[in-house]
Amino acid sequence: MQLRIPGPTPIPPEILQVMSRQMINHRGPQFTEMIQSMTATLKEMFQTKGDVLILTGSGTGGMEAAIVNTLSPGDKVLVVSNGFFGERFADIAEQFGAQVERLRFEWGYPADPPAVRQALSQDTGIKAVLVTHNETSTGVTNDLASISAVVREFDKLLLVDAISSLGAIDLPSDEWGCDVVVTASQKGWMAPPGLAMVSVSQRAWQANAEAKMPRYYWDFAKAKRFLEEKGQTPWTPAVSVFYALAAALEMFKREGLANVVARHIRVGSKAREGVKSLGLSLLPEDSHASNTVTAIKAPEGLEVKRLLGILREEQGTILAGGQQRLDGKIFRIGHLGYVNEEDIEQVMEALKVALPQAGFRSR
Amino acid sequence: MQLRIPGPTPIPPEILQVMSRQMINHRGPQFTEMIQSMTATLKEMFQTKGDVLILTGSGTGGMEAAIVNTLSPGDKVLVVSNGFFGERFADIAEQFGAQVERLRFEWGYPADPPAVRQALSQDTGIKAVLVTHNETSTGVTNDLASISAVVREFDKLLLVDAISSLGAIDLPSDEWGCDVVVTASQKGWMAPPGLAMVSVSQRAWQANAEAKMPRYYWDFAKAKRFLEEKGQTPWTPAVSVFYALAAALEMFKREGLANVVARHIRVGSKAREGVKSLGLSLLPEDSHASNTVTAIKAPEGLEVKRLLGILREEQGTILAGGQQRLDGKIFRIGHLGYVNEEDIEQVMEALKVALPQAGFRSR
Repeated sequence: MQLRIPGPTPIPPEILQVMSRQMINHRGPQFTEMIQSMTATLKEMFQTKGDVLILTGSGTGGMEAAIVNTLSPGDKVLVVSNGFFGERFADIAEQFGAQVERLRFEWGYPADPPAVRQALSQDTGIKAVLVTHNETSTGVTNDLASISAVVREFDKLLLVDAISSLGAIDLPSDEWGCDVVVTASQKGWMAPPGLAMVSVSQRAWQANAEAKMPRYYWDFAKAKRFLEEKGQTPWTPAVSVFYALAAALEMFKREGLANVVARHIRVGSKAREGVKSLGLSLLPEDSHASNTVTAIKAPEGLEVKRLLGILREEQGTILAGGQQRLDGKIFRIGHLGYVNEEDIEQVMEALKVALPQAGFRSR
Repeated sequence: MQLRIPGPTPIPPEILQVMSRQMINHRGPQFTEMIQSMTATLKEMFQTKGDVLILTGSGTGGMEAAIVNTLSPGDKVLVVSNGFFGERFADIAEQFGAQVERLRFEWGYPADPPAVRQALSQDTGIKAVLVTHNETSTGVTNDLASISAVVREFDKLLLVDAISSLGAIDLPSDEWGCDVVVTASQKGWMAPPGLAMVSVSQRAWQANAEAKMPRYYWDFAKAKRFLEEKGQTPWTPAVSVFYALAAALEMFKREGLANVVARHIRVGSKAREGVKSLGLSLLPEDSHASNTVTAIKAPEGLEVKRLLGILREEQGTILAGGQQRLDGKIFRIGHLGYVNEEDIEQVMEALKVALPQAGFRSR
């Protein structure tokens, strides 16, 4: 099976193997050694001197954690939204009582930094800006370098959903002044789902001290205290996924972050070329297309559901459909984590066979 | 290594093995089949005809979920607390704005059902009762049959922390009128940590419809909708832990719930006898001692930390210390999940050697 969805991503065999290790005491010295070493490596990968915390939960839990740890009900936040996950970030903030202003861009297009500047100029009451770095639903990578520069001009808190970018697409958290950056184990990290990893800047801690949104399970301050004082997590961690992520981080260190990023650039570019050579069109323009997920417009006559079914049943290749308003209109190839150019070639071979069977007539 | 803490508990080899399976699409048919079959089996184990939801997170996340899904800020709740985890249940409710009345019993003693009746008589404004079934910190199993009967008299919502009881100690959720019952994969369930499982009664759904505490990640209604409409979870699930729990539930079915419960009764009784035969005393009276965890008083002259170190380093046996105010005063043997009488014998052999080395002089 070729699992080519944007998460969970395929796990390298040596990492799958460590998942079978017996349990250890999460309050014992072995766990402490593991989490301390992982945290140190994660800081390198987040490119931060701030804190990095590992939380047991999905990426969405990490997004919720970023919000409830830095904001109070009634706080005004600007959510830069150009897809399904941007809307999710806004929904969570709203759910916890923030006053949410959604700066929306068409799905398939990138967020526009000058528009962010305008929104921040017009409303000085905004406390925080929430941004999706890589919009998994549309295959668009936002220009976070420029957006973060704008946010810094206005000295606002910057919360970043980097779930499907970090560990695959360059994101220098400190340099770009990101206050909370959220990612998840099953994306670029080559580990199974179950852990969310978050960085927390000094400014985020200042916000945390005053943030009044209710929190218990996701409490950053408690997680930091347990990590620093005991080398533990406050609640029982997903021990096996820790094993996997620890092993994956060792692979990361061996390959080197710059090489990992370069590999994703090559793989992303190969995916886009391959798709076009099949006579298909990308949802986004090349210039802001993501290097971790490629979104392809379903051409006239192509039934996406049928295509995905044929790929799965006859080609052993799992791709993803579109989400919400893009359901039936696009399909997506995930290429993040444990992936190389040959994997992309295999996907293209599978598509070459399956596309005509699903009603696609190349012109 | 003999891991004898009250969770994470040792995993049977055949379950460890499935943890190494490659990822699958959590939005595909294989996952749907798995979660549907697991949910059906869990309903048998929870002894409920209500809903059972599987959430990615620790048990504490499940406790938070139980609260935020059924209550509103300002709601008055009675928390029956006789240990560290009873206090945690109360802390979470307080954190989310409930008015919390703590009905406290001394640590090491069980909650008293008539006292619950009195508390409910005195304050008719109480909306829900929160109870810890098995207090892991003290090795006490509360008389939930009697407490739940009292709660039914007053027609209150009943939220139960059954994290270290369910799947090991009998808990007929429906018969006892429990509205939300919370457990976690790393306890009696013989799986690694990472999943919380909760049952939700019809009355809990009614409460849910009116509950105003903010929630997003833990939203029961969304989890139910995804399960019923798609056979999925709203957020990416901890797929590997699902594999493990699915395999563990098959083992449960083969052994039969009644046999599992009977085994824990035998094992618990053997642990208590063994401890006494070494000249040690239990923290709780026998009559309400837990069949999943045994709490032992540290006698004069015994340094708990030293004992645990010797057991770990020289006997390959991991036991747990006391929590919070019981730190240094007790130590605990976990015996839930994948455990039989021989495992207890091994613990006793290890203790026999280590106790004198740690300063214990049997009289």
